[in-house]
Order: sequence, then C-alpha cells, then structure tokens
Amino acid sequence: MADLKLTTRAEDYSEWYNQVVLRAELADYAPVRGCMIVRPYGWALWENITAALDKRFKATGHVNAAFPLLIPRSFIDKEKSHVEGFSPELAVVTHGGGEELEEPLVIRPTSETIIGHAYAKWIQSYRDLPVLINQWNSVVRWELRTRLFLRTLEFFWQEGHTAHATAEEAEAETRQMLDVYADFAINEAAVPVIPGRKSAAERFAGAEQTYSIEAMMGDGKALQAGTSHNLGQNFAKAFEIRYLDKNGVLQHCWTTSWGLSTRFVGAIIMVHGDDQGLILPPRLAPHQIVIVPIFRTDEEKAAVFENAQRLRRELVDAGIRVKMDEREGMSPGFKFNDWEMRGVPLRMELGPKDVAKGSVVLARRNRPGKEGKAFVAQQGIAAAVSQLLAEIQKSLHDRALEFRKANTFEPASYEDFKKAVEKGFAFSWWCGGGDCEAKIKEETKATMRCIPIEQPGGSGKCIFCGQSASEKAIFAKAY
Amino acid sequence: MADLKLTTRAEDYSEWYNQVVLRAELADYAPVRGCMIVRPYGWALWENITAALDKRFKATGHVNAAFPLLIPRSFIDKEKSHVEGFSPELAVVTHGGGEELEEPLVIRPTSETIIGHAYAKWIQSYRDLPVLINQWNSVVRWELRTRLFLRTLEFFWQEGHTAHATAEEAEAETRQMLDVYADFAINEAAVPVIPGRKSAAERFAGAEQTYSIEAMMGDGKALQAGTSHNLGQNFAKAFEIRYLDKNGVLQHCWTTSWGLSTRFVGAIIMVHGDDQGLILPPRLAPHQIVIVPIFRTDEEKAAVFENAQRLRRELVDAGIRVKMDEREGMSPGFKFNDWEMRGVPLRMELGPKDVAKGSVVLARRNRPGKEGKAFVAQQGIAAAVSQLLAEIQKSLHDRALEFRKANTFEPASYEDFKKAVEKGFAFSWWCGGGDCEAKIKEETKATMRCIPIEQPGGSGKCIFCGQSASEKAIFAKAY
Repeated sequence: MADLKLTTRAEDYSEWYNQVVLRAELADYAPVRGCMIVRPYGWALWENITAALDKRFKATGHVNAAFPLLIPRSFIDKEKSHVEGFSPELAVVTHGGGEELEEPLVIRPTSETIIGHAYAKWIQSYRDLPVLINQWNSVVRWELRTRLFLRTLEFFWQEGHTAHATAEEAEAETRQMLDVYADFAINEAAVPVIPGRKSAAERFAGAEQTYSIEAMMGDGKALQAGTSHNLGQNFAKAFEIRYLDKNGVLQHCWTTSWGLSTRFVGAIIMVHGDDQGLILPPRLAPHQIVIVPIFRTDEEKAAVFENAQRLRRELVDAGIRVKMDEREGMSPGFKFNDWEMRGVPLRMELGPKDVAKGSVVLARRNRPGKEGKAFVAQQGIAAAVSQLLAEIQKSLHDRALEFRKANTFEPASYEDFKKAVEKGFAFSWWCGGGDCEAKIKEETKATMRCIPIEQPGGSGKCIFCGQSASEKAIFAKAY
Repeated sequence: MADLKLTTRAEDYSEWYNQVVLRAELADYAPVRGCMIVRPYGWALWENITAALDKRFKATGHVNAAFPLLIPRSFIDKEKSHVEGFSPELAVVTHGGGEELEEPLVIRPTSETIIGHAYAKWIQSYRDLPVLINQWNSVVRWELRTRLFLRTLEFFWQEGHTAHATAEEAEAETRQMLDVYADFAINEAAVPVIPGRKSAAERFAGAEQTYSIEAMMGDGKALQAGTSHNLGQNFAKAFEIRYLDKNGVLQHCWTTSWGLSTRFVGAIIMVHGDDQGLILPPRLAPHQIVIVPIFRTDEEKAAVFENAQRLRRELVDAGIRVKMDEREGMSPGFKFNDWEMRGVPLRMELGPKDVAKGSVVLARRNRPGKEGKAFVAQQGIAAAVSQLLAEIQKSLHDRALEFRKANTFEPASYEDFKKAVEKGFAFSWWCGGGDCEAKIKEETKATMRCIPIEQPGGSGKCIFCGQSASEKAIFAKAY
C-alpha cells in the first residue's frame, strides 16, 4: 500500500482520514453495514490506550467487572429520558434457540439499566457504598452515518458506573473521572483537550449533568473524546437503588457513569497525522521504534543483522517497544514509507557503514526529511532513544496545542463568529439559553461543545442575543 | 454471607458449587435467563487468567484484534457442518434502528465465519502467511440448561484463528496451542489436565480434528477446559481463503481455531475448593495474601495499623498482591471466614502481641486449623511469603493430581467400567468405533473425553465390543 500516494489533507480531509485508517491497517470495513474490524495494529494501539486508562481507574479505587450484553427491552423504558434517547438506536434480538422470545432483548447501547438492576440487589447499607465499577466491552447503537472509529454501529469502550451515598460524592466522582480523561489525553495521547460542561441539549439521556473533554482535529473541527455523567438519582429511582443510611433511613443512591471509546483512536489520527500518514504518540505507539536493516550482499546482511539484534535487545531490555523489519524482497525505501504511513515515532536505519562506525541513523517521524535525521552512537543507544521518544511526545503535544490556539477565536460579533466556526473554535460569551444554542446550530452548523471549567471570570454579552452572560463557551463544528 | 454455613460437597456437590460462586461473589445471575454477571472478584480472577494466557499467545507470535459481534445469518450457512452445529443455538437480531432488517443478523456464537470472510480479503500470497490472530470477547449460544461459569448463554473467552500455507503447519499450530493450554492449566491454575484428541462425534462443528485438555473435578466428573481445532481446508473453501504459492499457483489455506473460556473458572472452583469455600491457586488469585489487623483499643489499633501498612508495602514492593482488610465493625473471626470463603491462599494475622514480638501469624488456606498456621518473623517477610505461596501452588497441583490418579481406573471388564465411571475416569482400550462410543454413552451417561496424547503403546481389546484396539481413551461423565 505504501507505494500509492495518499490523498492530502488539503485535497480532501475526509478521504485522507479513510485512507490512513485502511492503509495503516488500523481497521477495515465489516460485512455488516457500519461495523468495523479493528485489525491487529489498531487493536495494539487500543490495548495501550486501555492499559493507560485502566491503571488510572485502579489507582482511583475502581475495579472491573462484566455485565451481560443482552438487556430486557423493558429495562430501557424505565428511565424516561433514557428511553427517548436510545430507543431509535436499538438492535433487537427477537429469536433465540430457534424460537421467538416472549420479551425481546436489546444488545446493550450502554449499561446503566442492567447495572442499575444489579446495584439495587447488591447495595443494602451505607457500608456497601461507594460502588466503583468499570467494564471494558463493546456496545451497539444503530447509527445511520458511520465512519471507521468515529461512529460505528458497534464500538469498543469502557463504561464506568458508580453509586454513592450523597450528591456531593457523585459530583466529585464525575469531576474526578473528567480529570482522569484529561490527564490521559494530554499526557499519554499528546492530545490537548478542553474539559468542560455540556449544555442541557447535549447531555447524556438520563443525566443531570454531562462533562466532556473536547479536542480540535487537524481540520479545525471538534471531537468529543470522553464523557462523564452525573446521573443524580434518576437511575437510582428508576431501578430502586437504595441504601440504609447511618440513621437507619432508606435513601436513594446517587450514581454516575463515564466512558471513553475507540473514537479516541480517530482523535489521535486527526490530531497528529500528516500527509505521509499516521503519527503516533510514543507513549501509546505499538512500536516505538522500527529497525530497518540495510544491506546488499549476504555478508553485509549477516553483519548488519547481528548488530541489529544486539541493539534490539538493548532497547527491549530498557522497556522500549521495538519492531525489527526483517521482511524480504522489499527495498529500504519501501519500508521507510510503510512505517511512516503507520506512524512509528522513530526509525533506526542500520547499514554496513553504520556497523563499521558503531553508529546508527535515527529518523524522527514528526520531522520529515533530513532535518529529522541524526547519526547517533550505538554506545548508550537505549538512553538516546528514550530521550528522543520523550522529546517527540512533547513536541506532538505542543504542536497540537499551538494549532488549537491558532485556530481558536474570540469573535467580537456574530458575523465574526460565523467566520470563526468555519475555521476552528469560537470561544464566546453565551447566555446559557437553549434558543440561542439552537439558532446558532441552525444557522452555522456549529454546536456548543462545552463550557470550559477554566473561565476568564467577569461577564459579557451573549454572542447571539446580546443579553448578559456569565460564562464563555466553545462553539464549533464537530465530528 | 460468611456467617451462614456452606452446604458440604458430600451433601450436594451441585448446590455447594452454586453457593461458592454466589457467596465468594465471583458471579451473579443476570435478569436474562442463562446470562451471568461476572462480579469484580470473579473478573479479577479472569483478568489474571487472560494475562497468563495472553503472554503465552504473544510469545508464540500471535497478535490480538477485534472482529464484530454481528454476523450475517447467511455466513453461518456457508460451512455445512458448522450450520448444523450452531443453527439451534443462535440469537437472532431481526430489528435495528426501529426497522426490520433485510437480512437477519446473528450474535456470534464463535467467529470462524466472519474471520474467514476477512482473511479471504487480506490474504493474497504466501508472503501474507501465516496469519496468527486471537481475540478476547464474549459469544452467545442459546443453551437451555445453564450453570454459572460452566454453561451460560453469553460467555467470555478468547478465540484464536490462524491461517497457514500447509496442512502440516496447521496441525503443528493446533498442537502447539493445545500445549499452551496444558502448560497454562498446570503451571498457572494448578489444574492437572490430560491433553488428547476428541472423537469424531465430539468434534467442533466444521473441524477435521479437535483436541482438548480434560480435567477431573472434585466429584470425579470431567470438564473440557480448552479446545484446539484443526479446521483443514473446510472454512478456507467455504470462504475462499486462498493464496498464491511460490510457483504462482492459487491454493486454499489451512486454518485452525482454539478457545478457552470463563468455564475455566468453574474448573478452578471444582478442582481446588473445599467445604469452607473457594481455594485459589496463588499465581491467579486476585489477592495472594490478606492482612487482618487485630486490636481492641484505639491505641492498639494505631500500632497494629502502622505495622500492617509497613508489611503491606514490603509485600507489594516484592510484587505480591496484597489485600488489607480495614473493614470496621466486623470481628477478626468473621473476616477469617470471609476470606476463607473467597479462597485467598494466605492470611496474615497481626495483633498487638505480634507487633511487640516482631512476628506475624501466617495461615495457609489449603491446610485448615492449627496445622496450617505458623509464627513467622517480620524480618524478611516478603521472601517467606513468596516461598509459602510457591509451596501452596505446588501442593494444590499435587493434591489435585493425586485425586485424579486415585479416581482413574483401568477397568478389566465392561461391568467394572460401569462402576468406574460412577466414581471417576475410566482409561480403557477403545476400538475407535462411533457405535461403541454411542452405546457406552446411552448405557452409562459417560462420554469419550479424549484419546490422550500420551499412550501406553501396544494394543488391547475394546472395552465395549472386544474387538482389537490400538489406543486407550478416557471415558467419564462430564460437565
């Protein structure tokens, strides 16, 4: 695949995205419309994402479990907003074991209902609280317009579900997990994100409050990269999740849920990728460095491979994820392009002259051409590679942050606002009114992404209606 | 739960099993018939199982991926034996997004078909082979008689799917994965297993050859704990998985599949558990040791906790999985019973006198009463605990192996055979005939579990028909 030229981002951003996903072999289309196959390279990336998140979940006291895939249809109906939100998207199982079922089952679109049912059974007293459970699984939502990773019928994610004794604890948990997502995005994926609060219109079906992290893609559009919901007592009341408090009084719990999905892979592609393909942040890359041996004769090959294996071992021992490209019948140039397409952060070129000199060539994926290449001594290679990987990680983040800053505007008028959302984010005073939000969406296709947690303070005039506003919000077109 | 006495194995083995699963909080019943919720403690055990297996899969060159949950109904029909085997067990999705689907979809009962479809697209030439992919997921089979972990509508597992250029390579892969399963069972789960070949009647639907590992449960019955299938060219022909060989000739691939599921948790429970509850092998136990602080006054509590925290830290630093039981309002005795029920291999008791003496009490879960208790110096505690855990691991395995040996018979006559399968395994000469196998099953309820790889050599007379037989087989009642 590496021999065909990629459509550039400027030519057709959407086509560029699809080509990168397919050619880097991250994912492929499945025979069922809207479903995807996550190929081994894409899954290895997702495994690194899950490991980085799971560590954070466990460090904040959460444990994993597994709830069933099949939910009685009637469960979805128990919470009023939830049924409105999810009914149109359900996949329904009507037959099992050759017979029609008495009650249809749905494939989980999310698990608040079935988990609510279990919590009602497990939770008796304040001693049982808080319950802090997460699960890694896939869910099905019958989406009409699908894109690999960004929106698929079945997608992979984690969904955390917690139950608490008080409203304050539930809100603290919701905010804590928002912080966990932001920390993961920034420090592992090098994706700068804005944590903030959603409007009522954009809330999760059944939530009292939804928070999200929002990232800017390479075309200036926004992508919601993770959400954390304070469900209040809505699901506790629908499923009778109750506990006896210290005074022996029966109380409804306060619950939360939070999720981050394979959508995040789409964010990584669109935040870091360039016209040569994918660029992966070193901390999540399946291969942090690829070694490409270069040789002509069998004699050269033997010497180069012997040296390459030794270097590989040194890097592996230092905890670096190394790929040795031993494929036969492909030129080094072809391999360079192939690994550039797949976004490996660092490439080591090793030929007979390098072996003789005791050095290697290291090429940085994020700096094209000669500028990104350097001769490095083999002595102390692991330390040199580790340092370079840390530098690449930082520079990916900094470049993305600069890009976002350069494409975030604070328009003075609604006319300027309309121009701003054609290019990137508009950060504007907003009165909080659903009418202004709806009209902005209708007229510009931009949606209220979030009211950032970090606010400038003071007050201003709503960008749409001119009424007094106490908060600024991010508006943008979005994936 | 720990205050209620468990039904003993002698009283009612089946009831004992159900109580252990529920009281140890490994799993719970789901609202949909036959489905289960794997609770955090059960899932932590499964996570340790997956980690131990995944490491072995990767060490043998496999990579993970994710294929969709939904499969077109027509795919199942493409392989003749496969459709016969799985049609009666399918869960069928007929509606999506509020509309009836043109073609019904099934929830995967296993993924040979959808993976075969993908491999046909990905594999072009001998250079693309072998393809060695595994996936961790859940599958749905509409079982009528279900038991937690042992047989559930939805179960969790891994399914490996590989494609090869030759029959020999496919057979070598099938056997390699059988060895991997046996190695895992014996060395991680302390479950002695017999690797062997299945009869034609017990083969996977669509396989040329099925191998399994068989274990003896605490009641003498057999449990198939993992299977590895050589699919020959059956699926390659059904899905046109072909490659151009080195001579430019188009050939069908040879494929394999192999799986191990949450059923294995049932095996661990029934192989090691006793009348006090679960006993977990240290290498897979979520908590390898539990620390129970003992105190009366606040002053004692402070001293004991301070000491306990220091010991915990030392153990954690040594890579030992430690649980500190800080629950309030429960007596030490209650806690002892609770952790015994949950099968934690080692318990550390720490009271004011122990603090003063610089020692602790270590109690081994697998040796009840005083015999299993020892005073151990705090100095060098991590090494002492590590050594004890290794001893427990070994003694669990040895005890299970002895039990199996004591309950494996080599009956001289069919009359003795019938008695043998009431108690345990019958290891008998078998002519290989399906008729004998079927009649044995009809008359004794015992099935041919496997023809062990390890054979005594020589020949004998079939235990049923008396005809000449060249192999011995294990017959037993089974889960």
